[in-house]
Amino acid sequence: MKTVSVLGSTGSVGRSTVDLILSSPENFAVQVLTAQKNAELLAEQARKTKARKAVIGDESLRPFLSELLAGTGIEVAAGRQAVIDAGAEPADWVMAAIVGMAGLEPLLAAINQGCAVAIANKEPLVAAGPLVIALAHEKGTTLLPVDSEHNAIFQVFEPDNRSAVERLVLTASGGPFRTWAKEQIARATPAQAVAHPNWSMGAKISIDSASMMNKALEVIEAHYLFSMPPEKIEVLVHPQSVIHSMVEYADGSFLAQLGAPDMKTPIAYALAWPRRMQTSGARLDIGRLRQLDFSAPDHEKFPLLPLAYGCLRGGQSACVAFNAANEVAVAAFLQEKIGFTDIYRVVSEALEQNQQGGALQSLEDILLLDHTVRRLCESYINSFTSLKRAGHS
Amino acid sequence: MKTVSVLGSTGSVGRSTVDLILSSPENFAVQVLTAQKNAELLAEQARKTKARKAVIGDESLRPFLSELLAGTGIEVAAGRQAVIDAGAEPADWVMAAIVGMAGLEPLLAAINQGCAVAIANKEPLVAAGPLVIALAHEKGTTLLPVDSEHNAIFQVFEPDNRSAVERLVLTASGGPFRTWAKEQIARATPAQAVAHPNWSMGAKISIDSASMMNKALEVIEAHYLFSMPPEKIEVLVHPQSVIHSMVEYADGSFLAQLGAPDMKTPIAYALAWPRRMQTSGARLDIGRLRQLDFSAPDHEKFPLLPLAYGCLRGGQSACVAFNAANEVAVAAFLQEKIGFTDIYRVVSEALEQNQQGGALQSLEDILLLDHTVRRLCESYINSFTSLKRAGHS
Repeated sequence: MKTVSVLGSTGSVGRSTVDLILSSPENFAVQVLTAQKNAELLAEQARKTKARKAVIGDESLRPFLSELLAGTGIEVAAGRQAVIDAGAEPADWVMAAIVGMAGLEPLLAAINQGCAVAIANKEPLVAAGPLVIALAHEKGTTLLPVDSEHNAIFQVFEPDNRSAVERLVLTASGGPFRTWAKEQIARATPAQAVAHPNWSMGAKISIDSASMMNKALEVIEAHYLFSMPPEKIEVLVHPQSVIHSMVEYADGSFLAQLGAPDMKTPIAYALAWPRRMQTSGARLDIGRLRQLDFSAPDHEKFPLLPLAYGCLRGGQSACVAFNAANEVAVAAFLQEKIGFTDIYRVVSEALEQNQQGGALQSLEDILLLDHTVRRLCESYINSFTSLKRAGHS
Repeated sequence: MKTVSVLGSTGSVGRSTVDLILSSPENFAVQVLTAQKNAELLAEQARKTKARKAVIGDESLRPFLSELLAGTGIEVAAGRQAVIDAGAEPADWVMAAIVGMAGLEPLLAAINQGCAVAIANKEPLVAAGPLVIALAHEKGTTLLPVDSEHNAIFQVFEPDNRSAVERLVLTASGGPFRTWAKEQIARATPAQAVAHPNWSMGAKISIDSASMMNKALEVIEAHYLFSMPPEKIEVLVHPQSVIHSMVEYADGSFLAQLGAPDMKTPIAYALAWPRRMQTSGARLDIGRLRQLDFSAPDHEKFPLLPLAYGCLRGGQSACVAFNAANEVAVAAFLQEKIGFTDIYRVVSEALEQNQQGGALQSLEDILLLDHTVRRLCESYINSFTSLKRAGHS
C-alpha cells in the first residue's frame, strides 16, 4: 500500500493519475488532492479515492468545497499556502502536476519530505532547476519525470553508466504546424495551435508544442534532470510520436522507450515505480506500424527551440526569463491579443532585456525575477498591441 | 582489471572480442584463448593480448602452435578436452563463442565456475537450455547474451518486473530472401544465401538467417534466457535492422535497443557489463534514418520459423532434434549436396522421426540424441541425394 498525494488533480495529468489510482485501489491510499478552481471535480475525486484531504487553491471556493464534501469526513483546506503545504503532507509518493510556475513551491515542499516525487510540470525545473535538483540530492528524493520524453529517458538511463552516455535524443512530434509554411504559421489561430496531431493535452502545453517551445523547455529540463551538458542533448522530429526519446551510449547502443501517445503510460510508470502496473487503453501495435520518420528540426520555422541552448549557456536567469516570457505570451495568444509568431517576439525581447546572467541564490530571487519578466512582457505586449490597434484604425 | 577468456577466439565474434580487448588493454587481462584449427590467428591473438594460454582444438596442430608461440612464455594446450577445460580456467568473464553444439561443454565448464559468461553461440541454449539455465542458477552465474536480439532484450529487461513483461519482440531483418518469390528461394545457391543484407557473420549463421531458422533458434533461446513462455515471444520483420529487439511491459512501455548492425556493440556491452565501454566503428545516425519498416514474418516462405513454437511445446528433445537436423542440413547445403528448401525438408523429417518428447536428464542424453539425429539426417540426405542423382542420370 503506497500513500500518495496528487497536486493539481483536476488537470489533464492529475485526472489520469486519479484514474490510475482508482484502477488499482488496493495498492494506493490517497492522502491529499489539490485543485485551483475546479471544486466539483476535486470533490468527486476525493470521494471516489477516499482521500484524507482536499485542498482548493482559490480561497473563495472553500465554502463550496466544504458543502460538496459534507459528511464524508474528508478534511478541507483552501488558499495558496494550503496548496503548498499539501506537498509537505507525509506520503510515499507525490504527483506534482500544477501547471506553470505556480507549481514550484508545492513541488519543493514535496521534495523536501524526501519521498518519491513525480514531476509533470516542466516550468519549475526550467526556472529553478539548480534549486530543485540540489534539494532532491540533499533529501535523497527520487524525481520521476512524467513528461513522456523524460520519462522515456528515465526508463533507459543507467545512472551508474552516466559517463558512458553520449547523447540524449529528445523526439518531437513537430506539432500541428510541422508541415505548414512560415507565413501560414504566422496567421495561426489558438484553435489551430491547440489541435495537437498525436497527444491530448492542456492548452498551454499544446501551444508550446505548436511553437516547439515545449521541446525547448524539455531540453532545459533534461539538462537538469539528467545532469547532461547542452551539447549532449539533441532534438529530433519524429512525427509519429512512437519513439518517445532515447539515450545513446558509448558502446553504440541507443536505448529507447516506445509506446502509444497516451500519457497514462508515463504516469503509470511513475506511479508504480520501481515496479510496473497494468494500464488499460491505447497500446502501440508495432506489427501495424508501417513507417517511422525522423528529421532535424527546422530552426527557421521554430526559432524558440534553438534559444534553449543559448539560455542554458546564459545561466539560470536566462532560463527564468525564457519560461516566464513564454507563459505570458502564450496567455496573450490564447486571448487573441497577439499572433502566433509574436510569442517568439515576446520571448526574445525578454531575453534581450534580461542580461544579468549567472545563478540565482534563492527561491525569492527566482520568483522576483519571474515576476519582473512577466510585468515587462505584459507591458511589452500591451505596447505593441496598442500600436497595432492604432495602426489598424 | 577484468580477467577474461575467449572460447572460439578466431571466429567472427571471437575476433571482434579480441579487437575490443585490445582497444582497452588496461582493463583486461587475457587468460585463455581457444580455436579449433586456425593456429596462426590464434598465435597472433595470444601474442597481441599477452594471453596466459592458447588452446587449439585440433590435436594435430599442437606442434605448429607451440612453434608459433616459442619463446613467448604463453602456455600451449591441444585437443577437445583442453578446449573444454579452457572454460574452467579461472576468469572473471568468459566469452563462449564456439560455433554449434561443440560449444556446449566448454560453455558448461565456464558457467560452472560462476563467473560472468557471454553466450554468443545459440545452439547450446537451444539444445540444452534447461541444463544451462539450471547450472547458471545453481552457480550464480550471470549469462550475458551476445546475439544482437537477446543482447537488446537483456539491456532493457527488468528482472524485478518480470511479471509485468507482456511480450518479447524479436526483430528479424528477413534475410537476403525476404523479397524473393518462393520458387526463387528454392533455387538459391550458398553464395546467395550467405550474402546477408545487413550483418557480416559466419557462414552457418548467415544461412540460418536466410532460412529464418536463425530467428526460430532465437525464439527458443529467448524462452530459456528470459524464462518466457512461447506465446509471449513474437517475431517481427524489420528489414533495416535498426531496432534490435524490444520488451513490452504491462504499462504500455516498449523498451528497445537500437544501433548500427555491428556485432561490436553487443560484444562490447557483454565485455564491459555492468559498465559500458567505448567502441569505434559504425554508429547509427538516427538523424539520417528516413524510414523504419515492420511486418509480420511470412510463414509460408519461411516455414522453419513457426516450427520453433511447436518444438517449445514438444519439449527439449524436439529442440535438440530441431537444432541438430539444421546443422547437418546447412552443412549439406553449403557443400551443395542439397537445395535451399531441402533444409526445411530435413529438419521437419527429423522432428517427425523424433517423437519421444519430454525432458532429457543429462548432458549425455542430450549429446546422444544430438548424435542420433545427426546420423539420421545424414543418411536421409544421402538417400534423397542418391535418388536425385539416379533421377538425373
